[in-house]
Amino acid sequence: MNGFWAFGGSMKGFRFSAVEAAIKKPGRLDLALIFSDLPAKVAAVYTTNKVQAAPVLLSRERSANGSCRALLVNSGNANACTGELGMQDALECGRRTAEALGLADEELLIASTGVIGQQLPMDRFRKGIQPLVDGLDRGTLEDVASAIMTTDTFAKIERREGEAGGTPYRIWGIAKGAGMIQPNMATMLSFLVTDAAVDGAFLKSAFAEAVDGSYNAITVDGDTSTNDTALVIANGAAGNPEIKGGTPEGDAFLALLHDLLLSLAKLIVKDGEGATKFVEIRVKGAADNADAKTAALAVANSLLVKTAFFGQDANWGRIIAAVGYSGARVEQERVEIKFDDVVMASNGIFAGGDAEAAGTLVLQQKEFMVTIDLMLGKGEAAVYTSDLSYDYVRINADYRT
Amino acid sequence: MNGFWAFGGSMKGFRFSAVEAAIKKPGRLDLALIFSDLPAKVAAVYTTNKVQAAPVLLSRERSANGSCRALLVNSGNANACTGELGMQDALECGRRTAEALGLADEELLIASTGVIGQQLPMDRFRKGIQPLVDGLDRGTLEDVASAIMTTDTFAKIERREGEAGGTPYRIWGIAKGAGMIQPNMATMLSFLVTDAAVDGAFLKSAFAEAVDGSYNAITVDGDTSTNDTALVIANGAAGNPEIKGGTPEGDAFLALLHDLLLSLAKLIVKDGEGATKFVEIRVKGAADNADAKTAALAVANSLLVKTAFFGQDANWGRIIAAVGYSGARVEQERVEIKFDDVVMASNGIFAGGDAEAAGTLVLQQKEFMVTIDLMLGKGEAAVYTSDLSYDYVRINADYRT
Repeated sequence: MNGFWAFGGSMKGFRFSAVEAAIKKPGRLDLALIFSDLPAKVAAVYTTNKVQAAPVLLSRERSANGSCRALLVNSGNANACTGELGMQDALECGRRTAEALGLADEELLIASTGVIGQQLPMDRFRKGIQPLVDGLDRGTLEDVASAIMTTDTFAKIERREGEAGGTPYRIWGIAKGAGMIQPNMATMLSFLVTDAAVDGAFLKSAFAEAVDGSYNAITVDGDTSTNDTALVIANGAAGNPEIKGGTPEGDAFLALLHDLLLSLAKLIVKDGEGATKFVEIRVKGAADNADAKTAALAVANSLLVKTAFFGQDANWGRIIAAVGYSGARVEQERVEIKFDDVVMASNGIFAGGDAEAAGTLVLQQKEFMVTIDLMLGKGEAAVYTSDLSYDYVRINADYRT
Repeated sequence: MNGFWAFGGSMKGFRFSAVEAAIKKPGRLDLALIFSDLPAKVAAVYTTNKVQAAPVLLSRERSANGSCRALLVNSGNANACTGELGMQDALECGRRTAEALGLADEELLIASTGVIGQQLPMDRFRKGIQPLVDGLDRGTLEDVASAIMTTDTFAKIERREGEAGGTPYRIWGIAKGAGMIQPNMATMLSFLVTDAAVDGAFLKSAFAEAVDGSYNAITVDGDTSTNDTALVIANGAAGNPEIKGGTPEGDAFLALLHDLLLSLAKLIVKDGEGATKFVEIRVKGAADNADAKTAALAVANSLLVKTAFFGQDANWGRIIAAVGYSGARVEQERVEIKFDDVVMASNGIFAGGDAEAAGTLVLQQKEFMVTIDLMLGKGEAAVYTSDLSYDYVRINADYRT
């Protein structure tokens, strides 16, 4: 088991499986399972949307005690806006899987992604679950990463390795996007497993902090789905002394977690529908960090800014306008805007000279950075985004037709 | 003077003028003047963007006392992000115009729309102002409406007629859009004139209320410009007894004002860049009116919703998801969604049956209404929006190239 691994040794005490249950188009994996051989801790973050899919409601409740053994996930159907029946179906899927695994119902979490507003094809779930459980001895995390893809063009998987008290441990993670830009697919899922032993309270705070600096720093179109779920399961199979907060081992674990999540987050933006550019929006000199993030998100979500990126138009006026309406504290006569190293505007006015030509060259790259210095304080934030292309409109207008 | 009028008699005591000052492309009017023969009252609303053009800063200060005699407006250059020099230039334009009109500087307001971040071509203003003032005896409000167009495809003008104390009065208004969707053009301008005598404090409150129910209820892409300016000038030339708040005459004036502004607002959305649909998003049953507006705006601004409109895809899942993340109070199991009269979802779940086919027919129209009933309270709001098309991306990506 755990046959495949890229480097850093095998993930201990986790098994994976994925099958074709015909929920999506034929020929694609769409039902997957992550199973811990040992009792494990879990930390999870769910969508803030008030319209929440049945599996989100269920898993939020089950993960609240900080422990779980397994995760069942499907793509092709979000089980969102499906009412009472949707919840019964989610419960039945969970019960059947837990039974086959010899677990209590509450030890199993569920996640779904796919079309909103259609009931689950329960016959296919009923048929799929036993083969799924039987496959645990030969599946890989790659299989699970493939099974959660919807309109993603590639599977997203990242691995890190750490050490605590001389004992090596691993953190592996997968994600599906393409962020909030999915059409009626619902939407961002990310699952991490680690064989490190981690204090439960610390796992929770570290995961929340790492998500905030990664998934909460990417935006494609600002839409938040009904199904967003990110979680980490830690089973301690590596045998390290338990990692606690406020220690060097804790700091190292948090850094690894953040690095892994940020890598997955960037992959999601790069795989954004129709994306032709990957742009880091960095705001500094803000009155505080919250203001910096507010300003960066306004720029990253502005249609005028995103279409200018697509058009490779060095249009800093749209950027300063977005900063101005963001709600962040701004004094326009202080603002400096750079495209990579090219100063486009300083003191709130056009830098002149060769800035236009040099800025246009920057925007012709596939990846670049926009830095906005508000010159007010020490607040900083970075947000990652894509451009808005014809293909975004095409994909999202034509999706169901 | 005031030679042209469509109906309702001549606007009394106002004169208009517009010239080609070569600020825009040759062959287009781009510098215009509205002049009141009598001392007049003014109420104005300016952009909430913290990055504000010089003419906005100037006019905000000058209109604070509630009186003015004239308005100078140009298109082609926004005089935004132009620093100290931009303010000096705005002051000089104003001074030259006021001198030619025999006014004190403070009696003249200024508005600009056009490219951000470029200094005004002052030689052209200096040459244009005297012919502009000389033209006051032959110009029309239509000329001014044409002169403020940027990428608008048609001039926007509306007229209303009222009566107070047996004396008829008129309200005429013009606007330029296409709302917040302009590229680096800055942006929404609207100027109203009325020969009614109106109490100053009431004019201010009525205008603010009417703007809130009209211009603040339209959205194309959520971007707020550096130059947005809406104002009404009332000179009392009709000779009616002064209209005051809390009276039947006041209510009638407010209703006319709101009706006129809403008509202009709808014209702006219909002329939105690339727009192929005009959609009213109506939220009712919200906990309060503020919640209703929050939810309606989230739906109207969702890229997923707007691309679905463009694709004529009866995708109510995207709409309920936008309602869910809007921040409004929502109980998903209560929500009803209609496309015109077709119930797409009730109790938060798909209505089934023929809803998909019937809803698709609704979306194939050029204009339709989406009604979202949250079934929580009595809060209501309506927002008007357009779809998001290939052409939006094309126009905004290619604008400066």
